[in-house]
Amino acid sequence: MAKKLTPRAEDYSKWYNELVVQADLAENSGVRGCMVIKPYGYGIWEKMQAQLDKMFKETGHQNAYFPLFIPKSYLSKEASHVEGFAKECAVVTHYRLKNAEDGSGIVVDQDAKLEEELIVRPTSETIIWDTYRRWIQSYRDLPLKLNQWANVVRWEMRTRLFLRTAEFLWQEGHTAHATREEAIEEAEQMMHVYASFVEEFMAVPVVRGLKSESERFAGAEETYCIEALMQDGKALQAGTSHFLGQNFAKAFDVKFQDKEGKQELVWATSWGVSTRLMGALIMTHSDDQGLVLPPKLAPIQVVIVPIYKGEEQLSRIADYLDPYIKELREAGISVKFDDRDTHKPGFKFNEYELKGVPVRIAIGSRDLENGTFEIARRDTLSKESIAAADMVKHVQGLLKDIQENLFTKAIAHREEHTTKVDGYEEFKELLESKGGFFLAHWTVQPKRKTV
Amino acid sequence: MAKKLTPRAEDYSKWYNELVVQADLAENSGVRGCMVIKPYGYGIWEKMQAQLDKMFKETGHQNAYFPLFIPKSYLSKEASHVEGFAKECAVVTHYRLKNAEDGSGIVVDQDAKLEEELIVRPTSETIIWDTYRRWIQSYRDLPLKLNQWANVVRWEMRTRLFLRTAEFLWQEGHTAHATREEAIEEAEQMMHVYASFVEEFMAVPVVRGLKSESERFAGAEETYCIEALMQDGKALQAGTSHFLGQNFAKAFDVKFQDKEGKQELVWATSWGVSTRLMGALIMTHSDDQGLVLPPKLAPIQVVIVPIYKGEEQLSRIADYLDPYIKELREAGISVKFDDRDTHKPGFKFNEYELKGVPVRIAIGSRDLENGTFEIARRDTLSKESIAAADMVKHVQGLLKDIQENLFTKAIAHREEHTTKVDGYEEFKELLESKGGFFLAHWTVQPKRKTV
Repeated sequence: MAKKLTPRAEDYSKWYNELVVQADLAENSGVRGCMVIKPYGYGIWEKMQAQLDKMFKETGHQNAYFPLFIPKSYLSKEASHVEGFAKECAVVTHYRLKNAEDGSGIVVDQDAKLEEELIVRPTSETIIWDTYRRWIQSYRDLPLKLNQWANVVRWEMRTRLFLRTAEFLWQEGHTAHATREEAIEEAEQMMHVYASFVEEFMAVPVVRGLKSESERFAGAEETYCIEALMQDGKALQAGTSHFLGQNFAKAFDVKFQDKEGKQELVWATSWGVSTRLMGALIMTHSDDQGLVLPPKLAPIQVVIVPIYKGEEQLSRIADYLDPYIKELREAGISVKFDDRDTHKPGFKFNEYELKGVPVRIAIGSRDLENGTFEIARRDTLSKESIAAADMVKHVQGLLKDIQENLFTKAIAHREEHTTKVDGYEEFKELLESKGGFFLAHWTVQPKRKTV
Repeated sequence: MAKKLTPRAEDYSKWYNELVVQADLAENSGVRGCMVIKPYGYGIWEKMQAQLDKMFKETGHQNAYFPLFIPKSYLSKEASHVEGFAKECAVVTHYRLKNAEDGSGIVVDQDAKLEEELIVRPTSETIIWDTYRRWIQSYRDLPLKLNQWANVVRWEMRTRLFLRTAEFLWQEGHTAHATREEAIEEAEQMMHVYASFVEEFMAVPVVRGLKSESERFAGAEETYCIEALMQDGKALQAGTSHFLGQNFAKAFDVKFQDKEGKQELVWATSWGVSTRLMGALIMTHSDDQGLVLPPKLAPIQVVIVPIYKGEEQLSRIADYLDPYIKELREAGISVKFDDRDTHKPGFKFNEYELKGVPVRIAIGSRDLENGTFEIARRDTLSKESIAAADMVKHVQGLLKDIQENLFTKAIAHREEHTTKVDGYEEFKELLESKGGFFLAHWTVQPKRKTV
């Protein structure tokens, strides 16, 4: 079993790293900066994916898949994009290995050098807009609203599990529109879709808004974003949606014939969220005992731990539980009955606390006699004894409560750590002493005036 | 609209290539050997994924995610594996681009050379078994049954959409077991899971069996496979499941302590199917008019085409259809009502025939008066007029019929093209003249005798 976590107050960053590994979410691999997402962590990501995918489809998007590799020359076509993305990336230069002549192992075959280097996609605007040129000719082909679920690589020098890794998983939406207004509407819509997902499913409150010019996506005219506040008072960018203007249409010569027969450049958006959301989820709710998961994204919502001596007692408990487990599952609740005889109840309690399972039910011989269950909730760490007949209903209510409580708590934390400042001196001072969000004055000199 | 397809009888391979592109399934990209999977093609792949994923989970597997990159040295650790996979692969040698000093664009930064080259995974046994070493210590950690959905790259010189591409999408299962018997059982089970999926959902009959030694996976002791017969009389390998013995455990030093406290090497399997299944699906059922899809995997099961003159007629048809569409959807049928005013009905008919939509419903003013629908099925290209009140029930039956009919037809084709041969001369002659499957004599000299 894992050792105790470093308390947040002592070292927040260490606490996070230990938690991710000990709760079986992810770990570093033998490849620098690349993580292994473990089954339990991937189970949460799958739930996120399923919900996001549903929301994308409900807003009229379809999935597709574009190549992993981007020819070097494509990156150069959009001037500011290349500045932003051509720096730290994985470059494929050869396509063959061979046995070393001196028998020392395998080496790169220098005869198999690519004529043009390929970049492992850091993002896919260029390869996708190169494709859109073939797909878009007429106003009838618009809008084109696609998304892809993919892995991308950005060669980060300092990596942290989920928050910043060389390879990460994400989705990237890429849409093409006939008008500027429609593209802006799409970019704004996707910011709101992200915000709804993060607040309703992750129970993480976010601020919606525009990035300043210096923080904009390389190639965007405007970047919309959602920002969440972590427990250490730092902001985490949870998702971005970009209005790309006609920049990529110009770079890749994507034009359409409008209803009047005139050739026009296409308007674009792109938007993405990544496994970084896992980091936001973990950092918002978890405590010194371990992970705390919102029920809507928990791979296991309820765990049942039997307390018994010997085979016979276990089998009696198992038989007794059978209809209850069935009833819980029929109510759409994911239940794990942990009947392993290789670990003691105390070990299991710690394990599920560490893994953030929202509801834990314990049942021993005495509960059997009394017709009760001991029910513990992970968010408040409180326990109560509930009559067996009321259990399923109680658990349903509890899951709802926990989801709401986590969101309420996170909002309260954010309000506590949001400060209104009126002067620059005050701003600088509070930035050092308090952290958190500041409601400050900001002079925007917008490139365009319609938003 | 697309031009007519080259008939299969004229040039089967050309027919296939044209069909894949014209039916909007996939196309070649600007990156050599890498395809773009278009939304309609990806929609079929998503249905395959969802069903396979369900079957993997029902057989006790969990998903996880391992790095895209494999250090070169890992590949060398398992002797026959490196022979099979270290040849044609994408090699990452650098991690940065920079602006050329002469201002000619971006170039690879020679200062950013990796100490050890990274290979874009052609398959993940090595990186996964390097990880399993950390995860497996005791018999309590076994079995470990994981799967990942991922992209892989094998630098093929001659590529064909879906059938052989440099990058492809797949799933790869990797399991670890305490005993040889359990690992063999797992490998056999997954062959059967694949066979069930391919037969029940793709309506493609397969032969299950063992690969000969020369065709085994590099690193396997035994390779189980399912093979399907295409319309041109050639076999297509639709899925493989490997019993890997202790080869990877030896190479990566993965041992566990058994119940008696003894250190033992772990037994392994791996198994995969890929976007190649799309090729099998297309080639098995389609005809000279275009794609023919089994209803269970069709993104659109029923398309409704209105035949009308003017806005008013269209809106009358749309209103009339409303409750029928609702009823079809409530029956779990995916329906598209194609009310585009930019294309004529004849164009639409051709498009959905080309795209293999199983059932097409046409409705015009006369049908409205008569209370009928014209219903056409894609597999037989036959049409009939059905009373409106019976429509939903009729369509439900039709979808079932089409699914069965495709499988029956494919079985009949296979039987027709399966020949029993008793001598080598006969075998050679028939191979040239008839093609198809041969039931021939084969002397196996098994490495192990238990299977």
